[in-house]
Amino acid sequence: MHQTHIRVRGYHLDVFQHVNNARYLEFLEEARWSYFEDTGLTPLFLEAGYGMAVVNININYRHGARINDDLVIETRFTEIHQRNAVLSQIITLKNTDKVVADATIVFVAFDPHTNKAIAFDGPLKSRLADLVSAAS
Amino acid sequence: MHQTHIRVRGYHLDVFQHVNNARYLEFLEEARWSYFEDTGLTPLFLEAGYGMAVVNININYRHGARINDDLVIETRFTEIHQRNAVLSQIITLKNTDKVVADATIVFVAFDPHTNKAIAFDGPLKSRLADLVSAAS
Amino acid sequence: MHQTHIRVRGYHLDVFQHVNNARYLEFLEEARWSYFEDTGLTPLFLEAGYGMAVVNININYRHGARINDDLVIETRFTEIHQRNAVLSQIITLKNTDKVVADATIVFVAFDPHTNKAIAFDGPLKSRLADLVSAAS
Amino acid sequence: MHQTHIRVRGYHLDVFQHVNNARYLEFLEEARWSYFEDTGLTPLFLEAGYGMAVVNININYRHGARINDDLVIETRFTEIHQRNAVLSQIITLKNTDKVVADATIVFVAFDPHTNKAIAFDGPLKSRLADLVSAAS
Repeated sequence: MHQTHIRVRGYHLDVFQHVNNARYLEFLEEARWSYFEDTGLTPLFLEAGYGMAVVNININYRHGARINDDLVIETRFTEIHQRNAVLSQIITLKNTDKVVADATIVFVAFDPHTNKAIAFDGPLKSRLADLVSAAS
Repeated sequence: MHQTHIRVRGYHLDVFQHVNNARYLEFLEEARWSYFEDTGLTPLFLEAGYGMAVVNININYRHGARINDDLVIETRFTEIHQRNAVLSQIITLKNTDKVVADATIVFVAFDPHTNKAIAFDGPLKSRLADLVSAAS
Repeated sequence: MHQTHIRVRGYHLDVFQHVNNARYLEFLEEARWSYFEDTGLTPLFLEAGYGMAVVNININYRHGARINDDLVIETRFTEIHQRNAVLSQIITLKNTDKVVADATIVFVAFDPHTNKAIAFDGPLKSRLADLVSAAS
Repeated sequence: MHQTHIRVRGYHLDVFQHVNNARYLEFLEEARWSYFEDTGLTPLFLEAGYGMAVVNININYRHGARINDDLVIETRFTEIHQRNAVLSQIITLKNTDKVVADATIVFVAFDPHTNKAIAFDGPLKSRLADLVSAAS
């Protein structure tokens, strides 16, 4: 399972001394860039000239992370459809089963000229399908 | 309907020249602070010593906002339950019906000592119920 | 004097319950976009196809702003040179003389093809010179 | 020399496709937390109940970092005075001499009750003096 590690710092917190809800989306995006890189997806998108976008995020905030917490983010593709794919991302406290947040992300690639989601095809489609199989 | 206005600036965008997905959550949080203030909710939470937290955000990104776009965020409470309440927030391009993003937010108040969601009670509960009625 | 108004929210704060040092730079950038817009500078840069960048920021953090503080940011050009211009930005607590932060910003326009700072020229140079005169 | 490594991601960029000026301050803060941790400073501040704040940042933006750039941030204390200390932080492109940004940071510890900068004393003062010596 692909993992990204982040230590919570003072600038991640807000007035309530927990990591702010918007900051978690940056943590998840950091993890997705790392996952795309480590699974060889990034060049398949960039060589094709595609932009990448999220069209839906459904995130549960289950435990407010605090300063010096060590977070582990697990990222995987769980579904691939014609024009979108679904990622699961789970943030836990390192070395525990404590879930800090979990999210389902619906992801598309888009043509920057038309601004429309493209249908997955060729090596990009195969790679996504392989990743979904590997994660199931 | 409560409205918050934000003009998209260069620092809101990311590599794909649209407002970044995490930044929208800051826009929504800005709108919620403004809504809580304008509807008299803020003192009811703060006087009781409660923290405020979101426990779920489900957001659809429907149209990528670009630099100089004028965004209007409409915020309202749609449901109140024993220990949580639900907000609807919709971001449109000003003076159009074009939806940029819409989100459902599940919101709780928590006791900072126990870190547990409190049951709504007293004037806070009545005010929330009034807001749900007014919005329906 | 050009003014931008920002109310401090919970998500602007960090672990020490003051506005985080990086967040002030977003407040200053927001104020510069507004100033450039209100003084007619934005089209002069964008029509010429120039990018805008800061090459130096020297900022004093004098008083830690807290939640619900109302901030006023005053922005003006103070110097224009061949290839850069200098802005002064001062953040105060509204209706007081209390300085929260003050900054000197060295600003350039750059050609996105060469990535080099351009020499100010034509209507852009005149407009900048007018703004420096008006502020002195 | 203490080093922090950051890979530039899509969400770090702004409309001009370079890392945004405010984001660099988060990179620098991340590096300072890491440096304080690795040099044993964090417990000396936290055990004493002190807050930490920057009172001046003077940052030169020398080369606009772009997506996928690998940044190295070098952090060290260069001066210690009665009530403040000075850090130098330099960001370069990994494996090159190319300076992306360099900054001088004036840093204080403050008493959260009085909100005033404290005079460095005891083990904290010695540790800071050691770090300044080691860096010179």
